[in-house]
Amino acid sequence: MTSPDRPVVGTVIGDPAGIGPEVVAQALASGRVHECSIPLLIGSAAAMERAVAVTGGNARIRAMRNLEPLSDDPGVIDILDTGALAAGDLPLGEDTVCGGEATAQWLDEMDQLARSGEIAATALAPISTGSLKLVGKLGKVISPVPGETYLVLVSGPLRVAHLTDHMALRTVCETITPDLVLRALRALDSAMQDWGLARRRIVVAGLNPHAAGDEEREGIAPAVEQARAEGVDATGPESPDAVFRQCIEGRYDMVLAMYHDQGHIAVKTWGFSGNSVIMVGAPYIHVSVAHGTAYDIVGKGVADPAMMLNAMRLAGELASGRGFPDDA
Amino acid sequence: MTSPDRPVVGTVIGDPAGIGPEVVAQALASGRVHECSIPLLIGSAAAMERAVAVTGGNARIRAMRNLEPLSDDPGVIDILDTGALAAGDLPLGEDTVCGGEATAQWLDEMDQLARSGEIAATALAPISTGSLKLVGKLGKVISPVPGETYLVLVSGPLRVAHLTDHMALRTVCETITPDLVLRALRALDSAMQDWGLARRRIVVAGLNPHAAGDEEREGIAPAVEQARAEGVDATGPESPDAVFRQCIEGRYDMVLAMYHDQGHIAVKTWGFSGNSVIMVGAPYIHVSVAHGTAYDIVGKGVADPAMMLNAMRLAGELASGRGFPDDA
Repeated sequence: MTSPDRPVVGTVIGDPAGIGPEVVAQALASGRVHECSIPLLIGSAAAMERAVAVTGGNARIRAMRNLEPLSDDPGVIDILDTGALAAGDLPLGEDTVCGGEATAQWLDEMDQLARSGEIAATALAPISTGSLKLVGKLGKVISPVPGETYLVLVSGPLRVAHLTDHMALRTVCETITPDLVLRALRALDSAMQDWGLARRRIVVAGLNPHAAGDEEREGIAPAVEQARAEGVDATGPESPDAVFRQCIEGRYDMVLAMYHDQGHIAVKTWGFSGNSVIMVGAPYIHVSVAHGTAYDIVGKGVADPAMMLNAMRLAGELASGRGFPDDA
Repeated sequence: MTSPDRPVVGTVIGDPAGIGPEVVAQALASGRVHECSIPLLIGSAAAMERAVAVTGGNARIRAMRNLEPLSDDPGVIDILDTGALAAGDLPLGEDTVCGGEATAQWLDEMDQLARSGEIAATALAPISTGSLKLVGKLGKVISPVPGETYLVLVSGPLRVAHLTDHMALRTVCETITPDLVLRALRALDSAMQDWGLARRRIVVAGLNPHAAGDEEREGIAPAVEQARAEGVDATGPESPDAVFRQCIEGRYDMVLAMYHDQGHIAVKTWGFSGNSVIMVGAPYIHVSVAHGTAYDIVGKGVADPAMMLNAMRLAGELASGRGFPDDA
């Protein structure tokens, strides 16, 4: 079903009580998702019916219990709805057991379809950790594992991979080893190659002010040297307060940050509005949005679909090896 | 000589071999420094003669060996030149012994004039640590001392104070105590009061991702609580990746960052071009520019004077208690 030019991207609609269905509906209505992919939704047809109505759309929802040939018609929204959310359950604006159960099941379905190759890449609208907690299924959320998977924030030209994620800063200082940094550099270079990036200049941020400390000398520099010997276009460790701006200005294609806030402060302070999140090292391309369920504005049709549109397009472009869209 | 409306601001011209004299000449030529202050330069008259010529200016240099009544005429540049840089020495584009000796002496003169009240505030053009090292006088550079002085980066609406400066991250984790944070909050609130800020909402960044760690609970939260009890409008600890954007958007008037890169990454990635640096806790108002000597472009008249102009204006506005200029 999938073609190299326009691969099938499976998008989970997110928690049915959040703005996920709305922003997905609007992203599809823009016509820009179809330009680079054949979209399939995974979720609740009823939630999408409501979302289309709320956002003033006129697409027809076509629900399927099992994967069937996709219509590939911008006027039709194909959705795999296995009944995870019962017909009578349509939560709005709050964490619910039914929302959590459904989200967990949709994430499983997405995972199976992607691993079996029936979809070429995946995108994820905002889920609620609160709903997932209610049903004890927070583990379904794909989280980065140091040394294996890496969270990459994409904010226009600023792209930041994180060596570690939700780790206390004190622990980060003890965790940085040449092996860990080298594994990250190999994974990043390999992913960027798969995505079709001709230039893969990765700059590694130091840990300390001006990258002048023990960790840089003992933990980071040897890894950069080894990666370069293996053909990875890596530079660093460089001063952490300089690398992000240098990436924005086009001097690098990716920053490898040592810890959560190093990268997140840069991305969230810069203020680019269309951020996406990629999980590098996962067995398939997985792009999520950088915002939450926004319960306070759900059902009003006022949510900004820019991030969702970027995430869905990014999944399609990366899966087809065309690299980053210029405006994402 | 100084008046409450237009206080005398003493500006050290920086290393004579760098772009300092040029950007000072251009800042003065804009006429905007005189709007809020009576300027006095401290440095070499010969270096300023050259800088005025290089930048196509037409101001007349009026050198004085000892402080005399100032002309307060935008067409005249008053400069205190005690002969620290010998008549024949006029270095350009490189670190020199004579440049280092002169810079050290000018910094001493600035300090004496400010402590005696003969000037109300000070500004500093780019100096060269290289030149100062050559003469073993790197200690003349005013550096922050944890618990006593705090570097504040001003980048338009984004203002960030730093609890610690050039300290290894590992050491930062062990350094944060309620006492240290409380002293910083008191010093910041007091300085902001002196500067004339009606609103002094200070948000304290946490140390760890989402401000969820031991250091927040044990080191930061008790200090914020105590500061609030003393009437300081402090909030936090808040998620470090959120506070800088919130400050930009006007929700706070100052961020207290826990470490060098936390604040520097935010300021340098945001990309506002007119950054200034204030040393809070010093015995007088001291504002410096956030760029270096730029030896590669010196003497060409192409240096951007925006930061220098902001620094000189900021010194004047803060000394007169008018707060931050809207565009600085």
